[in-house]
Amino acid sequence: MRLTAEPIDIGTRTPTVLLNSADASEIGVHPLDRVRIQFDGGTTTGIVEVTDELVSRGVLGVTRPLGHVTGPVDVVVADKPESVVHLREKLVGEELEIEELRTIVEDIERDRLNDVELSAFVSGVFANGLSREEMQSLTSCMVDVGETLEWEQAPIGDKHSIGGVAGNRVTPIVVAIVAAAGVPIPKTSSRAVTSAAGTADTLEVFCDVEFTLEEIREIVDRTNGCMVWGGSVDLSPVDDKIIRAETPLSIDPKGQIVASVLSKKKSAGSTHVVIDIPYGEGAKVETLSEAREIARDFNRVGQGLGMEIDCAITRGEQPVGRGVGPVLEARDVLAVLEGDGPDDLRIKSERLAQMLLDATGVEASAREILADGRAVEKFREIVDTQRGDPDVSVDDLVPGQHVAAYTADRDGMVTHVDNRRVNELARRAGAPKDIRAGVCLDCRVGERIQKGTELLTIHAQKESKLEQALSFAGANTPVRVLPEDEALVEQL
Amino acid sequence: MRLTAEPIDIGTRTPTVLLNSADASEIGVHPLDRVRIQFDGGTTTGIVEVTDELVSRGVLGVTRPLGHVTGPVDVVVADKPESVVHLREKLVGEELEIEELRTIVEDIERDRLNDVELSAFVSGVFANGLSREEMQSLTSCMVDVGETLEWEQAPIGDKHSIGGVAGNRVTPIVVAIVAAAGVPIPKTSSRAVTSAAGTADTLEVFCDVEFTLEEIREIVDRTNGCMVWGGSVDLSPVDDKIIRAETPLSIDPKGQIVASVLSKKKSAGSTHVVIDIPYGEGAKVETLSEAREIARDFNRVGQGLGMEIDCAITRGEQPVGRGVGPVLEARDVLAVLEGDGPDDLRIKSERLAQMLLDATGVEASAREILADGRAVEKFREIVDTQRGDPDVSVDDLVPGQHVAAYTADRDGMVTHVDNRRVNELARRAGAPKDIRAGVCLDCRVGERIQKGTELLTIHAQKESKLEQALSFAGANTPVRVLPEDEALVEQL
Repeated sequence: MRLTAEPIDIGTRTPTVLLNSADASEIGVHPLDRVRIQFDGGTTTGIVEVTDELVSRGVLGVTRPLGHVTGPVDVVVADKPESVVHLREKLVGEELEIEELRTIVEDIERDRLNDVELSAFVSGVFANGLSREEMQSLTSCMVDVGETLEWEQAPIGDKHSIGGVAGNRVTPIVVAIVAAAGVPIPKTSSRAVTSAAGTADTLEVFCDVEFTLEEIREIVDRTNGCMVWGGSVDLSPVDDKIIRAETPLSIDPKGQIVASVLSKKKSAGSTHVVIDIPYGEGAKVETLSEAREIARDFNRVGQGLGMEIDCAITRGEQPVGRGVGPVLEARDVLAVLEGDGPDDLRIKSERLAQMLLDATGVEASAREILADGRAVEKFREIVDTQRGDPDVSVDDLVPGQHVAAYTADRDGMVTHVDNRRVNELARRAGAPKDIRAGVCLDCRVGERIQKGTELLTIHAQKESKLEQALSFAGANTPVRVLPEDEALVEQL
Repeated sequence: MRLTAEPIDIGTRTPTVLLNSADASEIGVHPLDRVRIQFDGGTTTGIVEVTDELVSRGVLGVTRPLGHVTGPVDVVVADKPESVVHLREKLVGEELEIEELRTIVEDIERDRLNDVELSAFVSGVFANGLSREEMQSLTSCMVDVGETLEWEQAPIGDKHSIGGVAGNRVTPIVVAIVAAAGVPIPKTSSRAVTSAAGTADTLEVFCDVEFTLEEIREIVDRTNGCMVWGGSVDLSPVDDKIIRAETPLSIDPKGQIVASVLSKKKSAGSTHVVIDIPYGEGAKVETLSEAREIARDFNRVGQGLGMEIDCAITRGEQPVGRGVGPVLEARDVLAVLEGDGPDDLRIKSERLAQMLLDATGVEASAREILADGRAVEKFREIVDTQRGDPDVSVDDLVPGQHVAAYTADRDGMVTHVDNRRVNELARRAGAPKDIRAGVCLDCRVGERIQKGTELLTIHAQKESKLEQALSFAGANTPVRVLPEDEALVEQL
């Protein structure tokens, strides 16, 4: 059908075209079907949405991804992309070959799948899992569509936490220790999606985190480490797009986690990686057996890709450190580096750093490097190289001035501090956008407390956000306190 | 956050709001998250999309479903609807209780789920199936959110085909026979989604098919039958919305089929229903054992809902009748009613009508009613009541004037006529929008033919559509012809 393409100023993710419902019926397409568009300059494919009023008959409304399509066009029905066949196969539990996964990864990368299709892929992986061979294939395909870093020397270290634990800000400490020991560690981190702060958000309190691949190489060449935001480089562009479908469903399929993490590590040129797998009530992985299984997947799939992966299975049933939110976490990090700060954060960081040093065959003690000040010196050097203030002190990191306490409404024992609710509470207080907003933990699981004891301190930059946070806390029990005789036996 | 709501003229399905990316970050939401909007007049929920340019900072762009929201508004993060928890449970294979399914059905009915969530529900049902109890619960919930028809007398007959077979236009013939035998049959049908013609599209060749519930009741009171489009009445509104996610994925989960069909039948007040379950290569159900299983599901779930369901398991490995497309199918239907027409269409219609008459306990012979002209007389009476021409003849039904043959490219045997490809071929020729477009079958599975034999005749109303159809036929083998020695043994 002959139509005239006109721009519609909507920045859709996919190459969406709007058709008048009469034209859609004439062409024989429904919403989310595809059309082949022949225009002066080539041929392309559009995903159909139908409107009665926004575009008139005879007009093809093209959204921004198709902004180059203008003037008279010929529009006909197009087939679905081949990848749709394969994501349907995944939904019924079939194992996909690498070339089949490649069609899916490439179509996601080029935004050729609509939300229904993207969701079906994520759902299929969630419902039926991925075999190790599929994980390895998927990882390879994800690496192939992204940028890569290559290094002349080896080993190249790296670490990653699969997430889900609030305040778990070990990265800057591990990077500082490992880099100080002489092992290059080009660490990229993410920003918050559903948490109160991603590692990149916390690091940004100290210094810039957005750099090009070339700049990253220079920082690492100079300091042995870096602490940057992965989103500013395209190491695994498909990963971010998959998150669009995972976030609304609050799902994070195991096989997808492995492919997501290892694709970024492989693209970063890492040879030795320590993976932190927290487990427990309220963590992403709930049980020890599940944590062990995913650890084995990481080991084997990493091996298949030529990387040595060591997994640390850690306790994740409560947050790590005291602060949750960019500035509050940054305070903990700097305190630990200076020989102070929360014990759990220090011990966990030392242990992960030691595992990585051992794996790379470097004879060095993480504890000593932290204790004798080499780590904090390295940290300040990296901060300086990343255009931050190398002389920053804990006192410079000021939490939000609107403060309220969340207190216990009974005597008893703290039996659970819920990661998701603490994160959400800090978000309601304004984090991560308001960097000084967040939550400070004043209790730990197992503590005996009395009615009125402060359990959490909430910080906000705005009064209204503090109120939203308090209202969330009141309705959602971020900290569970049970009378001592019920702490062991809960009757349902 | 305080914003000013301004209308954006986009007719989205869901209550979408557009936020400037800076405001979205300030509120703490991502695309597809939800916000609670307090406006002068009440409180409502919006699904977030993020834009850099289409709306400025400080503005909340509201799409048409939220057109009533204007002026200053307060916008805060909202929780996901409860149904999202349950659709995730379905994805991991849990069995859902009726109240859990109800949250999903109600949220779909009110368009509260975005495409990612809707797709995850359909994917979960497809990947993990539904237990019979879930099917029954889902059906009840779907009935509860729709309109219903109630009748004073009983029995009330009905029939349904689960679809997938091109040209399978038994409905008008069955309705005419059963209504002539004195059993009320308030039949609603659908329009084409992916086929060349839905029953409603074919019936529209004869008469109007869009009526209100009150009009339907009058037509049935007068003639004992009706042949109307179900989409003009809200008997199962959720069903149409679920199709939005099924169509792009080309999936049609079994449990969903049962709930979809039975919800419409229950809402129509039917007491006795015959279900046509075609099976075979290229049909919706591929194997006999699968067909039997879905038949048992229909029986039991129908029983639980107080209906008697009888299933006919039929051969579906090739189209039924000769014509595929509204007018071409209408010709077959009228020809059979007048004692002529394709044998397979006549025999299948008689058999289904007889099953329904037997089930309702009415002593009557479907074959006799068809043979002695009572059926065609009833058909013309219903057509007349539905504002059509009661004197229509086959010669009045003229196929598209642009005609081309699709011929065999070798000697051999017809081993398969593919329903999906024949449907798609007829769609490329212009059906169902161009009602005279479509395909006539000139061969049947098992026929021995020679190179050059006409296998299909393609009709179109426009030359360009004929060319698109021919190009599709050339590339997609709608009819498989194999040399006789390969017809039995296919080497892969």
